[in-house]
Amino acid sequence: MVVGTGLIGGSVARALRARGWHVSGRDADSARAEEALAAGVLDAVGHDPEADLVVIATPFAAVIEESLAALAGPLAAGAVVTDVAGVKAPVTDAIRHPRFVGGHPMAGSEQAGLSGADPDLFVGTTWVLTPTSSTEPDAYARVRHVAASLGAEVLALTPEEHDTLVAVVSHVPHLTAATLMNRADAVAAEHAALLRLAAGGFRDMTRVAAGTPTIWPDVCAENSPAIVAAFDALLDDLTAMRDLVASGDRAGLLGVLDRAAAARRSLPSRAVRPDRLAVVRVPVPDRIGVLADITTLAGDLGIDIADLEIAHSAEGDRGVLLVVVDSDAAQHLQGALGDRGFRSTVTPLA
Amino acid sequence: MVVGTGLIGGSVARALRARGWHVSGRDADSARAEEALAAGVLDAVGHDPEADLVVIATPFAAVIEESLAALAGPLAAGAVVTDVAGVKAPVTDAIRHPRFVGGHPMAGSEQAGLSGADPDLFVGTTWVLTPTSSTEPDAYARVRHVAASLGAEVLALTPEEHDTLVAVVSHVPHLTAATLMNRADAVAAEHAALLRLAAGGFRDMTRVAAGTPTIWPDVCAENSPAIVAAFDALLDDLTAMRDLVASGDRAGLLGVLDRAAAARRSLPSRAVRPDRLAVVRVPVPDRIGVLADITTLAGDLGIDIADLEIAHSAEGDRGVLLVVVDSDAAQHLQGALGDRGFRSTVTPLA
Repeated sequence: MVVGTGLIGGSVARALRARGWHVSGRDADSARAEEALAAGVLDAVGHDPEADLVVIATPFAAVIEESLAALAGPLAAGAVVTDVAGVKAPVTDAIRHPRFVGGHPMAGSEQAGLSGADPDLFVGTTWVLTPTSSTEPDAYARVRHVAASLGAEVLALTPEEHDTLVAVVSHVPHLTAATLMNRADAVAAEHAALLRLAAGGFRDMTRVAAGTPTIWPDVCAENSPAIVAAFDALLDDLTAMRDLVASGDRAGLLGVLDRAAAARRSLPSRAVRPDRLAVVRVPVPDRIGVLADITTLAGDLGIDIADLEIAHSAEGDRGVLLVVVDSDAAQHLQGALGDRGFRSTVTPLA
Repeated sequence: MVVGTGLIGGSVARALRARGWHVSGRDADSARAEEALAAGVLDAVGHDPEADLVVIATPFAAVIEESLAALAGPLAAGAVVTDVAGVKAPVTDAIRHPRFVGGHPMAGSEQAGLSGADPDLFVGTTWVLTPTSSTEPDAYARVRHVAASLGAEVLALTPEEHDTLVAVVSHVPHLTAATLMNRADAVAAEHAALLRLAAGGFRDMTRVAAGTPTIWPDVCAENSPAIVAAFDALLDDLTAMRDLVASGDRAGLLGVLDRAAAARRSLPSRAVRPDRLAVVRVPVPDRIGVLADITTLAGDLGIDIADLEIAHSAEGDRGVLLVVVDSDAAQHLQGALGDRGFRSTVTPLA
């Protein structure tokens, strides 16, 4: 049973149905539940006391209440309840039930709502589960199995660790992107030329700020302590960076930037097995024809692209295409690229 | 004549030769100048007293000295000197000569040095020129003409305005990306799972930090006052954002994020005429095959892609492809996409 038939709930429902489950569901907006039924996302609308899996995929405000309600009602033997909220400690602290397993599928789409629901939304993504010492092992195993069966890589974290880490790697960076964009916009109000100087690097850094901000007040309210702590650490680091510039400490600056470059280059691009992959770097003009040429070339050679990034240069419209492929295929791709006049380098993904 | 035969100097030389100029050049590293000659980047090695254009493309430390030397020597009638340094006030202040026009082509490449030199490096990029009240109008006009002839959109700014704006839109964002990456890396040292939670948004925000940091100590030293001022303003804004989170001010937070979203969506993607362009947004799974399909489809239809972005979602591997094309072509592309099962929306680029 799925409670909440938006993007995530709808995608879970579609994915489960595709794997043979009978999926009932409901939504606070009953018209939306009927729409989900009509669209073939659900088998039935309404509460199902026989359900052996309940996925709470409502907006944050209703997660705890709906989870407790599901656990209090009659459920099939061994049935489990899980949720998909992006902040975990408040949820697990409030629920504390052996058959509740907190979850956070790190999947999203620019297309919100039921219309974006996709049975393959979770393939290759990380799905965090936050079992606690009071969680029944079998309940955890069942939820884990379901998440993995939808194609996700499951990662178990404590609720607190989850919240700390997403504050550092998602929440604070998102708020920082918005702040950078607003700062540039404020300056652009007086200097219209500013936006003509905004090259690929700035666009990359502020891209997430273009998203619809609806969920962010909830996320910030629920994860406030971790976000504030991560902000304070970042503000300290940024102040130290500012001071390196103000004091003209070239060696210190170079040291910090060298460290960042090394860390960014070794950032794994997905939940993949990095020891088997290699990065093929191809300097290219930042034109789309070239991108299509190279990616279709890989397709023609039967080489599966595990990941792809366009690293814009700090300025201008040159860049380097980073193509992540299986180590064995990397030399093959490099040779074929060379035949077509593209110089490239291959490095194992550390 | 080109002084300094690295990426920018080499690209200028190649571009000028392609347009029929006789291009001599030299480099502090004489072997590199000979290499440029052998590679057909230069017509001749050495100082050319007859040159009517001198482009100083050395590392920052030598820009002022080389510019003054060029202006002091015998030059052809009406000859002009320009440079390509990324910080302008220190250069123009030190040189103050009627036939010197400071310049900053906003072009770069991930591939540094002569091997990256490309005659088309400047096509479609912004080339800032910083004439002052003491610059001869004819000197400015000549340099402007040359930059435009290489395909760049020329933007004239005062040296001070240039330095202020690049601090806001390039220097401080770059240093912030490095700081975010180092912060995540420090946390990852204790929580290895962190890097598995780093989704597309984080990768976008830190991508520039992967670049070779060699030029940054110079940039930070030369533009220190503007960078420190921009940092201080950003730190104030980030502190205000942190305080919104700490105080649970949902309405305030939503207001700031809404403003950022509106600003980011209206950020022009290149130096183009936005009233004639439209954005086609195509929700896609973040897989390369899809990207190639759509971009080659546009090619097949003869539709020129002015710009292209992949907007990753905050989490997971769904995204939306933003294809910027001529307004008239947008409907055509949308129809063809629809025939192939891709839903898309078209909006004029404001």
